[in-house]
Amino acid sequence: MAIARKTAEMAEPAPRERILAAAHALFYRRGIRAVSVDEIAEAATTNKMTLYRHFRSKDLLVTEYLRGRAADAERIWDDVARAHPGAPLRQLEAWVGKISARLAENGNRGCAIANAAIEIPEKDHPARPVIERHKSLQREQLARLNRLAGFTDPERLADEIFLLLEGARVNVQSVGRRGPGGRFKERALSLVKSAARRTS
Amino acid sequence: MAIARKTAEMAEPAPRERILAAAHALFYRRGIRAVSVDEIAEAATTNKMTLYRHFRSKDLLVTEYLRGRAADAERIWDDVARAHPGAPLRQLEAWVGKISARLAENGNRGCAIANAAIEIPEKDHPARPVIERHKSLQREQLARLNRLAGFTDPERLADEIFLLLEGARVNVQSVGRRGPGGRFKERALSLVKSAARRTS
Repeated sequence: MAIARKTAEMAEPAPRERILAAAHALFYRRGIRAVSVDEIAEAATTNKMTLYRHFRSKDLLVTEYLRGRAADAERIWDDVARAHPGAPLRQLEAWVGKISARLAENGNRGCAIANAAIEIPEKDHPARPVIERHKSLQREQLARLNRLAGFTDPERLADEIFLLLEGARVNVQSVGRRGPGGRFKERALSLVKSAARRTS
Repeated sequence: MAIARKTAEMAEPAPRERILAAAHALFYRRGIRAVSVDEIAEAATTNKMTLYRHFRSKDLLVTEYLRGRAADAERIWDDVARAHPGAPLRQLEAWVGKISARLAENGNRGCAIANAAIEIPEKDHPARPVIERHKSLQREQLARLNRLAGFTDPERLADEIFLLLEGARVNVQSVGRRGPGGRFKERALSLVKSAARRTS
């Protein structure tokens, strides 16, 4: 009996995972406010009662969806660290390359977490701490690599790259990839190149 | 009779203006999708029938709201041109200052038009041409001033300032004004200062 259930679970993801996958696909594509809980339950081939048993409210489902998106973005830092151990400048450039490749993918709608910040002005929404933590961490990761790479003003370069990226992600949604957002990689690498480094 | 009507109109804005003012206040503060047509009609002390007589649909009201926001943003270029005639570099710096001051205002939720681009992924929405036209124009205005000011790579500097600003406007919504978005003015002016200009 236990074995039969386990096999069934392996064949198909559990309702919680299906709900999160559906929420991710629909929220990202159409926006958080544009998608109802009913639509997510249906896309996850489950029902609203099961959805609420796992997530209690739409706000908490949104929060969990954003936690997943944050974890996904944070993994990229590990990927570039593994690919270029002990080489912070190359890690930084590789990160810019990976982020830029994502931005050029079909169906890209920028950063799910920044989009959520715009859709959720409420300061008491449970997703707010997830948004703030993730965005602060991303900028801090940039500053950390800049310090390790020996830039004389690592904080300034971190602000520049970070804001350039946030801007690019919005801009591709405003005017498409032929606008300045489509030149994010070129512009970011040019800022990296022209920033002063301590002679090493 | 005609005079009496004119006096009444002067005492109180016509329904169309009241509806647009209410749409502006509510859409900007809470987001386009979060606000219903009923709420706007009520805030404008009119009714839904009058609203639809003037704007036909919520989508067309959103479009008209964004046209107003675009015109407002575009006026800033005229203001700085009048304040610093024949001095493109000072116009550019004054524009950065004005935009930055807005970003620091209480209740600022970034750029209404960029926010709309995120809330409206539909490519056939009537607001789409307004969004694209405005964002292209803003970037082109920056490039134009950069050319006049004699920067050797006016397009690059235009991309940098433009994306920095778009990023700052999103970032203040993610982490507040103490994050990198709150340093937009300082960062943008530093890019202007370090960009190469033809010897004049």
